[in-house]
Amino acid sequence: MAEFKSDIEIARAAKKKPIMDVGAGLGIPAEHLLPYGHDKAKVSAEYIKQVQGNKDGKLILVTAINPTPAGEGKTTTTVGLGDGLNRIGKKAMVCIREASLGPNFGMKGGAAGGGYAQVIPMEDMNLHFTGDFHAITTAHNLLSALIDNHIYWGNEQGIDVRRVAWRRVMDMNDRALRQMICSLGGVANGFPREAGFDITVASEVMAILCLATDLADLQKRIGDIIVAYRRDKSPVFARDLKADGAMAVLLKDAVQPNLVQTLENNPAFVHGGPFANIAHGCNSVVATTTALKIADYVVTEAGFGADLGAEKFFDIKCRKAGLKPAAAVIVATVRALKMNGGVKKDDLGAENVDAVKKGCANLGRHIENVKQFGVPAVVAINHFHSDTEAEIQAVKDFVASMGEEAILCRHWAQGSAGIEELAHKVVQLAESGTSQFAPLYPDDMKLFDKIDTIVKRIYRGSAAIADKSVRDQLHQWEAQGYGNLPVCMAKTQYSFSTDPNLRGAPTDHVVPVREVRLSAGAGFVVAICGEIMTMPGLPKSPSSERIFLNEKGQIEGLF
Amino acid sequence: MAEFKSDIEIARAAKKKPIMDVGAGLGIPAEHLLPYGHDKAKVSAEYIKQVQGNKDGKLILVTAINPTPAGEGKTTTTVGLGDGLNRIGKKAMVCIREASLGPNFGMKGGAAGGGYAQVIPMEDMNLHFTGDFHAITTAHNLLSALIDNHIYWGNEQGIDVRRVAWRRVMDMNDRALRQMICSLGGVANGFPREAGFDITVASEVMAILCLATDLADLQKRIGDIIVAYRRDKSPVFARDLKADGAMAVLLKDAVQPNLVQTLENNPAFVHGGPFANIAHGCNSVVATTTALKIADYVVTEAGFGADLGAEKFFDIKCRKAGLKPAAAVIVATVRALKMNGGVKKDDLGAENVDAVKKGCANLGRHIENVKQFGVPAVVAINHFHSDTEAEIQAVKDFVASMGEEAILCRHWAQGSAGIEELAHKVVQLAESGTSQFAPLYPDDMKLFDKIDTIVKRIYRGSAAIADKSVRDQLHQWEAQGYGNLPVCMAKTQYSFSTDPNLRGAPTDHVVPVREVRLSAGAGFVVAICGEIMTMPGLPKSPSSERIFLNEKGQIEGLF
Repeated sequence: MAEFKSDIEIARAAKKKPIMDVGAGLGIPAEHLLPYGHDKAKVSAEYIKQVQGNKDGKLILVTAINPTPAGEGKTTTTVGLGDGLNRIGKKAMVCIREASLGPNFGMKGGAAGGGYAQVIPMEDMNLHFTGDFHAITTAHNLLSALIDNHIYWGNEQGIDVRRVAWRRVMDMNDRALRQMICSLGGVANGFPREAGFDITVASEVMAILCLATDLADLQKRIGDIIVAYRRDKSPVFARDLKADGAMAVLLKDAVQPNLVQTLENNPAFVHGGPFANIAHGCNSVVATTTALKIADYVVTEAGFGADLGAEKFFDIKCRKAGLKPAAAVIVATVRALKMNGGVKKDDLGAENVDAVKKGCANLGRHIENVKQFGVPAVVAINHFHSDTEAEIQAVKDFVASMGEEAILCRHWAQGSAGIEELAHKVVQLAESGTSQFAPLYPDDMKLFDKIDTIVKRIYRGSAAIADKSVRDQLHQWEAQGYGNLPVCMAKTQYSFSTDPNLRGAPTDHVVPVREVRLSAGAGFVVAICGEIMTMPGLPKSPSSERIFLNEKGQIEGLF
Repeated sequence: MAEFKSDIEIARAAKKKPIMDVGAGLGIPAEHLLPYGHDKAKVSAEYIKQVQGNKDGKLILVTAINPTPAGEGKTTTTVGLGDGLNRIGKKAMVCIREASLGPNFGMKGGAAGGGYAQVIPMEDMNLHFTGDFHAITTAHNLLSALIDNHIYWGNEQGIDVRRVAWRRVMDMNDRALRQMICSLGGVANGFPREAGFDITVASEVMAILCLATDLADLQKRIGDIIVAYRRDKSPVFARDLKADGAMAVLLKDAVQPNLVQTLENNPAFVHGGPFANIAHGCNSVVATTTALKIADYVVTEAGFGADLGAEKFFDIKCRKAGLKPAAAVIVATVRALKMNGGVKKDDLGAENVDAVKKGCANLGRHIENVKQFGVPAVVAINHFHSDTEAEIQAVKDFVASMGEEAILCRHWAQGSAGIEELAHKVVQLAESGTSQFAPLYPDDMKLFDKIDTIVKRIYRGSAAIADKSVRDQLHQWEAQGYGNLPVCMAKTQYSFSTDPNLRGAPTDHVVPVREVRLSAGAGFVVAICGEIMTMPGLPKSPSSERIFLNEKGQIEGLF
């Protein structure tokens, strides 16, 4: 057996192309690439405008079965497929999300992909990168400061200090900031009130940046943010505080997509990273639509499993941005299927064909679901060394029994050479013209019915239920003109149900909606079905204790 | 009278050189310049190491009389002099501070210089620039999170939650965050305690970044930060929480100086920006020492007037970094001298030679003070249109009576062409070899005696006074080994005394030290003599209300 290198060893050994050359390969002139170091660049807003007349390439979604602690490798497969398409002669690009910096100091940071299917520079992407998240944090907190400042100077808008909906954000795991009383210390510091911080990726500004079509649309959406309510419960908007212009100024660079490269020097946009529970969990619309104008194939991914991620990708991102995905790839691993089949993590090493077969129920459900959106799908089996022939064959047989194809992919170990077959299949699906993409529900369906539709058709539950207060809230928003918004489900990613331990393909479960929130700027209604943590904490022995710079100035302990 | 253009109009009309060409002019190879867009770049740590063997250039300090609302133009003169030196054939560089983003959304943002003596790109420098302040914010707040996390998981170090000295920071004017109770909401959120935020420029991490000689020194100093005390009052260090490595990793790019250019395409480092009251108020040591290795003349500035800024520059920055300034320029304006002579701001338009003469007492005091450090000085009269011949002559006569020279400078209106005479004089002073720089007091003087020495010799007060508790604290630090640190005075910048309304050259005032703080990582003891605000608020009508992007995508309202 060959010796295995760690992700960071592979990433550091990569021969990077100057980012200007990567951009030139896409036809982007140097003056329209704003470099950040020699290996990252933003594409100018002007260039993005210039290419609007181009024909669109084909959009490929990479999604997955329900995540398990075994790991599925969705990003790895996204990156590998991008390289694979380039290998077979296609002009392809990858679009993925940016990583949040804060959590890397709690647990070891995630690379962007893994093995020989990675996007680089890994260090920067797990730290400040091009500063997008810092810009989002700043814009968000400017609005927070303006709210308290407005109250301080007389509160002309009549904000009810008990009903301030806009919290503050920080890109840090800091449980001490979840709940606080601010403005203490007397007259000069304002009116004491309850407040708190979320992590930056949970900011509505993040969701807005990722759904906005351009800077003007971004500013308009920011103005639409509801920051608080008056005593009569009427909403106060960011626009009422004249915050939208300054916030857009703070975001003017952040809205431009970041160009980096894969280990094989193929182009990738890494841009935006909204939460996949209280937000939609996809990279920015600007990155995806721009990539479609400059590449023939664009491979992108959605957060979590297909029940949450793909559904939101289709029903929120594609609906809003007018995207028409040509094909979908559903990633599964033998190990994760075994866990879905009831095997414990410690027992994954042993062959267990029965468990694989049992776990395939989860995969089958996701295949059906993706096809409900009219998008042709193929299953990618992301190969692990411990997989046995019989286990792999069991997956292939199961998928074949559904009339679809499962392809073994070895991109983690072999890079693009290991994923050629999938690349050819994806091209065939995308070029077949069989995609008849349509969202799951129409805009004009009632809000609660939208939730219920997702519960029944995607989660296969018996019904969505909610207290009268939740239903009344939805009715009120419908009366205020928000009824046409899509819903954004915040549910555990580990199960089709709201019970994270219920793996496989449960049916007939009830999905209780505990709370609903309106993200009026982003343009969706969040349905919260379970405990959702918007500010993580650090573990007892945080990874920060082991992070340092070695003698060569290289970062140790982050990966 | 010619039509005047605004600073931003002039800045936008400037013909920028690609930053790689600016760097090449200094002999920096392209691979050692890390670009941020086409007009900003960081110089690599590796290159900085490579040039350590070079001979040092001459260091010129630009300082000023006590600031008044009339404006003195210290940065403008720093930039103008850099251009002037280049104009007369010298290889010169400018080193100034970075601007804090937050305050720009309260009041109109400051440009870097003004008129035809500016550093560009102005927009970026007043917004995110190269992300240094965001990195400092993040590193600071990681340490804050680690403190509460340590307490949460058992508090092995025995931190007294009433004695946490390390607050949080944000680059925003947000009075609501000055004082708060955090960790509310029950067991999962920790132990409720009093906490608060300062603005990022007040962070000790900022002071450390600006005093560190390299990344290793930075990490060592971060480890030295005192974050809290135990019940027995023994200090808990950042090192005890194993925070220093991760914080250094977060700062590894921020520690590299930022190269930009003047309107005349001459090189400038803009790097670091610590508070000038609770910190030392100078750009980074790394920027200054690197500039000295790659240019023959380096023009830098210190915060506020010479009583605070130059004293700290000499006694903290030069002492610690082993810098030997060759000459100093003291900036004065006829208008500011008139205000020091008792004229109100609204009456500055009218000629008033007597007031100028009276106000010269302030200038005279600063000339004497700078010479106390053994550094030869020249006065730069920064010309305003309203100045009359007689007023200018009064300043020249006064300075001549002290045996020194005052030179009229028209760099604001004319760029380098207007400041040639000063440039020649500075070269003459610097090359004369007359500088005999020495700090005001020795390292081994008692801490309170250091404060008293500054009060008597620089402020010309009768004495420093302090309660027993303050003196006891200083003795305790001496016993703990901190007695050799310099002191950092936090006093009003408007007067030699602690009364901001006492302009001119007061004597025999008493200077009360209300509080002392130990910045053990930065390496100084702060003596607080008056109200010091470390988190500003926003005004009733903040400038953010008028900031937006115009149709061309240009920023309006920020300047």
